[in-house]
Amino acid sequence: MGLTPPPATGAWRPGDPLGDRQLFDLGRPLALDSGATLSGVVLAYETWGSLNSDASNAILINHAWTGDSHAAGSTSDPGWWQGLVGPGRAIDTDQFYVVCSNVLGGCQGSTGPASPHPDDGLPYGSRFPIVSIRDMVRAQLRLTDHLGIQRWHSVIGGSMGGMQSLEWAITYPDRVGRLAAIASCAQSSAQQIALGSVGRRAIRMDPAWRGGDYYDAAPGEGPWNGLTVARMIAQITFRNDNVFTDRFGCDMADGTTASDHWELWQRFEVERYLDYHGDKLVRRFDANSYLILGKAMELHDIGRGRNGLANALGRISMPSLFVGIWSDILYPAYQQRQLHEAMLAQGTPSRYVELDSPHGHDAFLIDLDQMGEALKPLLNC
Amino acid sequence: MGLTPPPATGAWRPGDPLGDRQLFDLGRPLALDSGATLSGVVLAYETWGSLNSDASNAILINHAWTGDSHAAGSTSDPGWWQGLVGPGRAIDTDQFYVVCSNVLGGCQGSTGPASPHPDDGLPYGSRFPIVSIRDMVRAQLRLTDHLGIQRWHSVIGGSMGGMQSLEWAITYPDRVGRLAAIASCAQSSAQQIALGSVGRRAIRMDPAWRGGDYYDAAPGEGPWNGLTVARMIAQITFRNDNVFTDRFGCDMADGTTASDHWELWQRFEVERYLDYHGDKLVRRFDANSYLILGKAMELHDIGRGRNGLANALGRISMPSLFVGIWSDILYPAYQQRQLHEAMLAQGTPSRYVELDSPHGHDAFLIDLDQMGEALKPLLNC
Repeated sequence: MGLTPPPATGAWRPGDPLGDRQLFDLGRPLALDSGATLSGVVLAYETWGSLNSDASNAILINHAWTGDSHAAGSTSDPGWWQGLVGPGRAIDTDQFYVVCSNVLGGCQGSTGPASPHPDDGLPYGSRFPIVSIRDMVRAQLRLTDHLGIQRWHSVIGGSMGGMQSLEWAITYPDRVGRLAAIASCAQSSAQQIALGSVGRRAIRMDPAWRGGDYYDAAPGEGPWNGLTVARMIAQITFRNDNVFTDRFGCDMADGTTASDHWELWQRFEVERYLDYHGDKLVRRFDANSYLILGKAMELHDIGRGRNGLANALGRISMPSLFVGIWSDILYPAYQQRQLHEAMLAQGTPSRYVELDSPHGHDAFLIDLDQMGEALKPLLNC
Repeated sequence: MGLTPPPATGAWRPGDPLGDRQLFDLGRPLALDSGATLSGVVLAYETWGSLNSDASNAILINHAWTGDSHAAGSTSDPGWWQGLVGPGRAIDTDQFYVVCSNVLGGCQGSTGPASPHPDDGLPYGSRFPIVSIRDMVRAQLRLTDHLGIQRWHSVIGGSMGGMQSLEWAITYPDRVGRLAAIASCAQSSAQQIALGSVGRRAIRMDPAWRGGDYYDAAPGEGPWNGLTVARMIAQITFRNDNVFTDRFGCDMADGTTASDHWELWQRFEVERYLDYHGDKLVRRFDANSYLILGKAMELHDIGRGRNGLANALGRISMPSLFVGIWSDILYPAYQQRQLHEAMLAQGTPSRYVELDSPHGHDAFLIDLDQMGEALKPLLNC
């Protein structure tokens, strides 16, 4: 594809530039849902704005699968919610103290499979345990205490970030003032699991994945083929039939002529686009983190160990916002409406907003004006 | 998965039992859209019922991606449209002479990548050229002449079979009495291409694929991992969110307990189902045929070289039926409605039927009662 070979892992590694990250060491070991315990856990996080004197203006933003703590940054280094977080923006950093942390199991500063194992200083690799969405939230609770925040003004997130936000509201309802879950779900559906499982298989099939222990590989010899295929599958489900038709149709890529149609590996334009997204991801992400976070999402089930869904939802009494996207084929709008309706049925103040966007699941990362309008009433109520 | 290893290829090979197949040698070489020419082309086909004296009762059935000529058979060896084709059934073999041929590029008796190359008797493998849907139809035209059929009473097919049926009606309008295209399209959409391209990458990533030349591999050493992953992707798109939720939810497979959740490779029930379908496919199909037929579908465009879609559709004047499925996420119902509306606009007698089935794309292979009711008025008009 004419590019320099990607690194064996796109993970941030100790010694890499910190950027805007701060690192918080959890101190005592973290017990996981799986029964395993992780020592020396670090969370990378970023903050914007200032915490007020009674610590009542703190907003927690939770990121999605391949997101990180960099929700907002500078013009030259923008964040993934750049247009939404900042002075005068919908999540107004003149008013709020905003925190975003990289998830446990991630690869952008927080402890994950690419991090050094405390026993030998070598990357965890295949030794990294399965983490749950709840484990991510438990780790964040320590950060919350560290930052001196007794109760978040709001906890907000989309996709996997929405799962974390729901778990926050259910696990620690006294510490969440308002909840916003966007394009997320109470429990992963079979189709979501199915799509995730195929990406997992693709990574496993890549000989360069080496059972998860590939961190000493030379550049270009990491599991980037497998991660690319996994990402291609995901990228299709992040967008939408209509948007693809509009952008790509059945055009061929790479300036081809009609006779080039008849070659098996001649790329279509949409294929080039998927390739591009795969190639971009392998340069900034770690295949093992992709697996670990994917599995966490598939295992997401707010009802597990809580006598079911209704009981779990019953713990949510703070003002809540659920945002769906009509064109979302991955976390369909009906999942958001169901959450909203459950809230109304139990008397929880709840609002449902459906983004009018053709961009599919990713609309919450694209149509930021609509996203901001959806959030404002919650943040100011 | 506890099963015997699959063969290097699931293709039918010369010398294997014929079953109900008949083999027709095309005789003179077949010129392809790509500019390549294939010699010694054979089509495998099956027939049911008897051709009447004026050869006016012949129906051509075109199969889908991984289908074959065995549309109907015995109780112990049923065909893929068993409930639809037979005495007294919707496609009534007491009344009609029914023909189904394995496509060019396929792997169940017709010439494809697993077939011997005339030059050296070794499998074509990577030497097999790209074929188009039109090439498939051109090969079938020779079979049609051979069978003494001047004009098909009806040409019928779903999915890739619908593409062939459309190409029949447009390329040889005088030889098609009635057209039925089911869950198909006039031109592949970007999303269809995207999904196909990811499966293609998965097969290429499998080291056992060996660039397409794997036919001398030992059992279990063929590209079955790659083909399984490709099939898993397809299988998700053949069905539907609702059906998956209904059948599998987020259950774990293999009689697991709660603690088994926390293992990366512990399968979910839906994953076991996808595995099962992948494993079944590799035992009866060839990875290279999967690639060749997938590419043919992605390149499908009835407007190519015909001054566009409208001109191509203008050649269809026979009574036509378009069947959509509301829950089809792969070939959405809107694609079928568009074809039907184009017919009405140009004065072609056309009917549109939407199957009321939650089963997604595969509904045309599952809900045979509805399928039969949709076809009957066309066959008897």
